[in-house]
Amino acid sequence: MRLLSNAVAVLCLSFGTLAQTQTELDLMPMPASVQIGSGQLAVDQAFTVALDCKDDGRAQRAAQRAVDRLSKQTGIPLTYKEADAAQAKLAIRCENSGEKIQKLEEDESYKLEVTPTAAKLTAPNPLGVIHGLQTFLQLVKARPEGFAAPAVVIDDKPRFPWRGTMLDVCRHWMPMEVVKRNIDGMEAVKMNVMHWHLSEDQGFRIESKKFPKLHEMGSDGNYFTQAQAKEVLQYARDRGIRVVPEFDMPGHTTAWFVGHPELAAAPGPYQIERKWGIFDPSMDPSNEEVYKFLDKFIGEMAELFPDAFFHVGGDEVTGKPWDANPKIQEFKRAHNLADNHALQAYFSERVQKIVAKHKKIMVGWDEVLHPASPKEIVIQSWRGQESLAEAATRGYRAILSRGYYLDHQYPASYHYANDPLENKASGLTPDQQKFVLGGESCMWAEYITPMNIDSRIWPRNAVVAERLWSPQNVKDVESMYRRMAVTSKWLGWLGLNHESGYEPMLARAAGTPNVASLKVLADVVEPVKEYSREQARGYTQFTPLNRLIDAARPESITAREFGVLVDKIVAGQANPEEKMAARHSLLMWRENDKALQPVLQNSFILKENAQHSQALAVVATVGLQALDYLDKGGAAPAMWRNDQIAYLETVKAPKAELLLVVAPHVRKLVDKTTAQ
Amino acid sequence: MRLLSNAVAVLCLSFGTLAQTQTELDLMPMPASVQIGSGQLAVDQAFTVALDCKDDGRAQRAAQRAVDRLSKQTGIPLTYKEADAAQAKLAIRCENSGEKIQKLEEDESYKLEVTPTAAKLTAPNPLGVIHGLQTFLQLVKARPEGFAAPAVVIDDKPRFPWRGTMLDVCRHWMPMEVVKRNIDGMEAVKMNVMHWHLSEDQGFRIESKKFPKLHEMGSDGNYFTQAQAKEVLQYARDRGIRVVPEFDMPGHTTAWFVGHPELAAAPGPYQIERKWGIFDPSMDPSNEEVYKFLDKFIGEMAELFPDAFFHVGGDEVTGKPWDANPKIQEFKRAHNLADNHALQAYFSERVQKIVAKHKKIMVGWDEVLHPASPKEIVIQSWRGQESLAEAATRGYRAILSRGYYLDHQYPASYHYANDPLENKASGLTPDQQKFVLGGESCMWAEYITPMNIDSRIWPRNAVVAERLWSPQNVKDVESMYRRMAVTSKWLGWLGLNHESGYEPMLARAAGTPNVASLKVLADVVEPVKEYSREQARGYTQFTPLNRLIDAARPESITAREFGVLVDKIVAGQANPEEKMAARHSLLMWRENDKALQPVLQNSFILKENAQHSQALAVVATVGLQALDYLDKGGAAPAMWRNDQIAYLETVKAPKAELLLVVAPHVRKLVDKTTAQ
Repeated sequence: MRLLSNAVAVLCLSFGTLAQTQTELDLMPMPASVQIGSGQLAVDQAFTVALDCKDDGRAQRAAQRAVDRLSKQTGIPLTYKEADAAQAKLAIRCENSGEKIQKLEEDESYKLEVTPTAAKLTAPNPLGVIHGLQTFLQLVKARPEGFAAPAVVIDDKPRFPWRGTMLDVCRHWMPMEVVKRNIDGMEAVKMNVMHWHLSEDQGFRIESKKFPKLHEMGSDGNYFTQAQAKEVLQYARDRGIRVVPEFDMPGHTTAWFVGHPELAAAPGPYQIERKWGIFDPSMDPSNEEVYKFLDKFIGEMAELFPDAFFHVGGDEVTGKPWDANPKIQEFKRAHNLADNHALQAYFSERVQKIVAKHKKIMVGWDEVLHPASPKEIVIQSWRGQESLAEAATRGYRAILSRGYYLDHQYPASYHYANDPLENKASGLTPDQQKFVLGGESCMWAEYITPMNIDSRIWPRNAVVAERLWSPQNVKDVESMYRRMAVTSKWLGWLGLNHESGYEPMLARAAGTPNVASLKVLADVVEPVKEYSREQARGYTQFTPLNRLIDAARPESITAREFGVLVDKIVAGQANPEEKMAARHSLLMWRENDKALQPVLQNSFILKENAQHSQALAVVATVGLQALDYLDKGGAAPAMWRNDQIAYLETVKAPKAELLLVVAPHVRKLVDKTTAQ
Repeated sequence: MRLLSNAVAVLCLSFGTLAQTQTELDLMPMPASVQIGSGQLAVDQAFTVALDCKDDGRAQRAAQRAVDRLSKQTGIPLTYKEADAAQAKLAIRCENSGEKIQKLEEDESYKLEVTPTAAKLTAPNPLGVIHGLQTFLQLVKARPEGFAAPAVVIDDKPRFPWRGTMLDVCRHWMPMEVVKRNIDGMEAVKMNVMHWHLSEDQGFRIESKKFPKLHEMGSDGNYFTQAQAKEVLQYARDRGIRVVPEFDMPGHTTAWFVGHPELAAAPGPYQIERKWGIFDPSMDPSNEEVYKFLDKFIGEMAELFPDAFFHVGGDEVTGKPWDANPKIQEFKRAHNLADNHALQAYFSERVQKIVAKHKKIMVGWDEVLHPASPKEIVIQSWRGQESLAEAATRGYRAILSRGYYLDHQYPASYHYANDPLENKASGLTPDQQKFVLGGESCMWAEYITPMNIDSRIWPRNAVVAERLWSPQNVKDVESMYRRMAVTSKWLGWLGLNHESGYEPMLARAAGTPNVASLKVLADVVEPVKEYSREQARGYTQFTPLNRLIDAARPESITAREFGVLVDKIVAGQANPEEKMAARHSLLMWRENDKALQPVLQNSFILKENAQHSQALAVVATVGLQALDYLDKGGAAPAMWRNDQIAYLETVKAPKAELLLVVAPHVRKLVDKTTAQ
């Protein structure tokens, strides 16, 4: 107790010593070119807009939304007021009205010039206006002289033309408001594709008027009506976002078969799949009726979704029901299809022709690429830069998703480092590189609900957006984290609940509003990575996602910042305040368990986290001891060090599917106590 | 630096939130009768509902909403499933379908019996079902054995039949979502009236089809269409809430006159009023055309709003334009109206007849009561229990609003102590008491926006709701604060942003996401009370409400909790942990200024708070010195004490319209250093 009190006293002395030297702007994604000028443009009650864009109203609606948002982010009661270009605080001009249906190839560039008297935004078409307005909004904030945007000249355009987020609305149903607010988020970071994963083993999520049994029997009533889909399409178009629907086939199709078992390679009846994983049910490629059905269905959906691209999935077909079906075996022999891979190629080819007949370009996962694939199709690589590069080398357009799986719960820095044109794709020639259209983050929905989906997408998705928009050499990780923190708040103003939902989820799990000590633990744990959760227990669609792992952040910023301090200490570069800051975090963690245990024991959900809380206290104690040794400038006894290392090894294993992510940093301190 | 501030916060919190011995349930409002049984009813995936209510679907929709909310508050993916009454986890029965238009006199009682096997909710009509479901929801939370409701028998009914919240949507426009989410909040705490203040000097906020110039010229385009009003009415009805519209007259009517200057006692033209206060413009009581107009207008609104009551305001008439108008003076003489009070009585009488003609009962503020008022009218008292009691004594029904003005920024305990039947109303006989229908909190909108309105209404409004629902002897303030904290989280799950909007507003003002030190200050200041803000600077409808005062909470819970510790210390009843907790808070406050000053200086909005931040450090230093003297068991030198008291006196004055509310607690510590 005495020690704590001292700790606090000293701790407080180091408050605010880590002032940031901020020379760059808080923009994300970072523009292609930024020249900072002098002075700033005040944003006040007199803010007006001039608009010179003859389009379908997109630019004007974007400007109105921008003013509305400016009002929210400043608290100044602004209303959209148009003025002459000469007098307006923000003059917007676009040269043409843009495509009726947003095109992949469409110019998205813009130029934004801010002077102390006015801002000028010019773009070839409304897409540039939409993007440029987001940049302008990010420039305005409270400064010593008022709300203002700094004088700047920004010349900006995206590095890749395809910058998407895939939303799985099937494994767990995600209603309209989730889709809409995430489209808002995508607009804010200049993404331009929402890949809408609409059918799965676990749910068929769009109304089909031609085959109503699909959504009626395959969705538990949770699907988008066509009217809702149109609303989403309009909403996305207004925000510069194309919507690419995906109907995954021939696998991942159990939910189709509940209403239409005749499409399946094995006899029914079928039930909506409730578990997670790769399942056997698939369509029967030997059945002409399947193609007739798909012709009608794809025809209906091709009409509903205006985008030029149409995604047919194609991933993870086990082939087992094909092997078990004598008719299909016979079909393979009759058509000289050596194996199931060839059979799927046959299926893909047939589907591609149907898609093309309906004037769409087929997109599919890696598996749809086969020797005879027509060159127009687009490959979405979940396997990585190698398969991406293979597609590009063979002259297929491709987009990267591996490394952008948000559900894998990796840190932002991991996604940031994942460049479509690096690693195994680094050998592509400039001409081959052009086939790499960009990338898409993927938000698979096994372990998310409408309550926590935002926290799995944001703010990390902003980093994917930067990787796909900004020049390849924009890579500074510390800058990225600093700007991501700002962007995260921005995204909160749009209604995304990735930050605001955190403490309520902790309070729910605890059954009490007093979650301070629970938050200390939650702040330093992370969910297990990649597919580990799947292996941890028998999850189904009905399993409540209400535990600490569901509230915990994919990346612990607290642990990351502690790690930065530790790295400085270990490198002998920490100043006294930084050393003190590390010590105080450790003190806090050491003492937290006492306050937290009763909370954990009072909730059946949280009991499983008791060990972690204890471990945090022990790890912190070890860290403090290591700091003591280091402060004395000497080495620790080898026996002490070996004991601690042994202990820290045991802490590596996940508990309740959570990792204690400060432990590796403490390990670095312990390692440093070796005699120099 | 986030790490540091967390460290301080938790060190303080982990001692500050001392273990609670919780014997009562977390219900607000507290039911009339609660008998706790043994065991609990588990709430899990198998949760089902049986419904035996033949009504217009209100009970079923309420049950569906309850299941939906149960799913949110547990994280269990529940869907509404009906079952036989014998097997259902929750069996709901209501005996009749309730009134087609919810009545003041309608029975709102319910009985809720929870056993380890099932819950049974019975009520005379859907209103009791709606209320009983809210109680059931509040019972379910994470417990050591699972999500469960404790076994309990609750027999409940409201103390008063009129329990309302007045929403002013005129001074600052409040759009649909604000109204709806606040209706959700009202339902959660069993309020049953939304008093919708729809016209004011500063805005006319409802579409009139008969007189479209009212909303077209009087609202800046910010008004509710009649279709939206109907949506709100249905939304409210479904939640057991009557909607009483108010059209304030003959004063508070500037916005009417923009389109209809012919109604005014003084010649136009008129502009929408942009300032706050009491203004002169008022209707011309001598003009027959005014009554013809009001007949048509009230007829239109009486049809739109189904409730039996119709509010015509009547407050704060200056009479100046009456005095200045010779025609009105002549009218007074001709009708033997001695003064403007008599003239307003004449007007009220005429309006009352129009209201009655349209089959409504008139409600008005204190001023509408005059000797000849018909007994059916209802008086809303903004003047207090005295005028309330006067009305009741004279046989008029009355509701209390004085003491429930949420915009006055008083603590929850203040509203809690404000009983309609106490103080100057305590002399009423039981028969006279029956004329006191209840009360209404008032949310006047001069200093709120859609961004912070929730934080001005909630959670304090829950305490008003308890005062009006629960038995008179439910008065324990500590219990109230404990339950209010729980209820506050509950209200957050409904979408109210009173908690989640706090840090974003701080970040906006700071222009940085790092608001830990700013929050330390914000947590211990409160806005000035009552009408002080009005006097502080020339506010208008256009003044940005984006400063620290607009983010700061009306009541600092941090200061309150510190005050509880101080009271124990001063009484010699604090244990060592409590003493330490007080010390830690003081240490944190003392050191905070160093970190905060750069933040304050970096934002033009926050600069004005620099003095407060310094003062907090000095006040904390004084507090620590006082604690040192007290720890030593001795008195402080008189000179030291006198100096500190003199300093603390200077700190009482508001700065930037904010009060440093920990200072009075420190004063108690200083006072205690007198030799015993």
